[in-house]
Amino acid sequence: MTTYRPQLSNQALPLTHLIDVIDEKGRVNQIEIPGERPLTIYIDKKEVLTLMTLGGAPEALTLGYIRNQRLVNDLEDIESIQVDWETDSVAVKTKVSTASIAKRTEKKTVTSGCGQGTMFGDFMNEFETLELPECVQLTQDNIEKVVDQIRTHPSIYKKAGSVHACAVFKNQVSGPELIYFIEDVGRHNAVDAISGMMWLDGLSGEDLIFYTTGRLTSEMVIKGGQMGIPFLLTRSGVTQMGLSLAKQIKMTIMARCSGEHFLIYEGAQRIQMRTPSALIQVS
Amino acid sequence: MTTYRPQLSNQALPLTHLIDVIDEKGRVNQIEIPGERPLTIYIDKKEVLTLMTLGGAPEALTLGYIRNQRLVNDLEDIESIQVDWETDSVAVKTKVSTASIAKRTEKKTVTSGCGQGTMFGDFMNEFETLELPECVQLTQDNIEKVVDQIRTHPSIYKKAGSVHACAVFKNQVSGPELIYFIEDVGRHNAVDAISGMMWLDGLSGEDLIFYTTGRLTSEMVIKGGQMGIPFLLTRSGVTQMGLSLAKQIKMTIMARCSGEHFLIYEGAQRIQMRTPSALIQVS
Repeated sequence: MTTYRPQLSNQALPLTHLIDVIDEKGRVNQIEIPGERPLTIYIDKKEVLTLMTLGGAPEALTLGYIRNQRLVNDLEDIESIQVDWETDSVAVKTKVSTASIAKRTEKKTVTSGCGQGTMFGDFMNEFETLELPECVQLTQDNIEKVVDQIRTHPSIYKKAGSVHACAVFKNQVSGPELIYFIEDVGRHNAVDAISGMMWLDGLSGEDLIFYTTGRLTSEMVIKGGQMGIPFLLTRSGVTQMGLSLAKQIKMTIMARCSGEHFLIYEGAQRIQMRTPSALIQVS
Repeated sequence: MTTYRPQLSNQALPLTHLIDVIDEKGRVNQIEIPGERPLTIYIDKKEVLTLMTLGGAPEALTLGYIRNQRLVNDLEDIESIQVDWETDSVAVKTKVSTASIAKRTEKKTVTSGCGQGTMFGDFMNEFETLELPECVQLTQDNIEKVVDQIRTHPSIYKKAGSVHACAVFKNQVSGPELIYFIEDVGRHNAVDAISGMMWLDGLSGEDLIFYTTGRLTSEMVIKGGQMGIPFLLTRSGVTQMGLSLAKQIKMTIMARCSGEHFLIYEGAQRIQMRTPSALIQVS
């Protein structure tokens, strides 16, 4: 566990806005819509890129972005993160050479699916060497409890729609414990913010469960793998490359998780069914 | 109407794949999942970026990407687009100087929401000068017919989920006519592919209706505006910045379009309700 914390501003924005709309009968209704703001990241005064975000956790988002893009390797090398909504920008101050950061921002891949989706550098190489813990188990009871906790959790989505949620649970015999719940206009921002929070809290992923309302596309599996989390669950579906990357690092991925229903796409050996014999035929 | 067409390969991929999954009773099911492949764009042998795509319309996607990022301004300047899935790449040959393209790829904005989301250059400036036609009207009948045609159109989404659809209709008194229907893992790819097809066909947007299953975030409104389409409809919602950009260029945007229901967020003056008096109170 790390005890170091960079200096962080605390500039979460109000997340929804009330607006007037007209329905099919010509009636004026008031509804809430999610906020969306540009946030330009400057690292040591050099502009890196502009994200569009709900703005609920801009410091953690910036931190997670830096971490997931491998722009800075150690949390200790980040001195401060200061968000300023007057200029829609965030200033990151580091203790490392800017030359190494400039080098890493050269190559970019724009990924599919919702959200941010730019990846710098060649970390597909790094991905191939990832190893997730073999022996951890997720019980059918805990799967159902994760789905149920998400269902009942207060959310922007229920109020205003148009956002994706990502959540991380501790996987415990006594039941899953919700640690982080983040919503953003893109699920990539949500997963980056969670990654930033895990970095701040010095949490590794081996006893965690990751849940998202969005699809498990390639980059979600890559980010889940980078965080070291063996279990990725979604209410939605899985793309072919998401599945193929999960196979590569032996990650357990499950989709269509809703009520008591779910589908295991990969890594069934880590799932403990209530009727254990059920899985024998396929293992 | 332009008659010029660049040389195009014809490398659409099979769009879904059959895989085995295990359900909550331990039963093995066969389901279809959407494909997802990297596609690296090379312009005059220079690597520009890698997109993740379903691969259903890779040539139109490449063309639309180039158009929407303003990398090349005239279709006549594109000589050929050759997709090669053995190397997951597409080679674009142009008749313009590569220096001007390199300059435009310098600045990037990673947008929120689903999909590709990278925008090069400063075309927010260009956006501010966009003018959409004032006098065009969309009837309530046509809105319902668009929604109904989308509902009954065969789709990857119905088979495999995990994709977004974008469609373009001709807005006619006799009813809307479906011109393009594209699905992809990110809705940005789908909208770029449509933009590419419109470019090839020399279509302008003033008498078109754009429909998407995805949210209307900032970049969807920007791309709709760039295509000159006055009507953007979605089954999903709208974010704050999507709305604010639509206000800026006086675009008509409607969300939660489903069955006979819809909500008009902006541009109600272009909507012709069955009971015209209903709108008087708000116009």
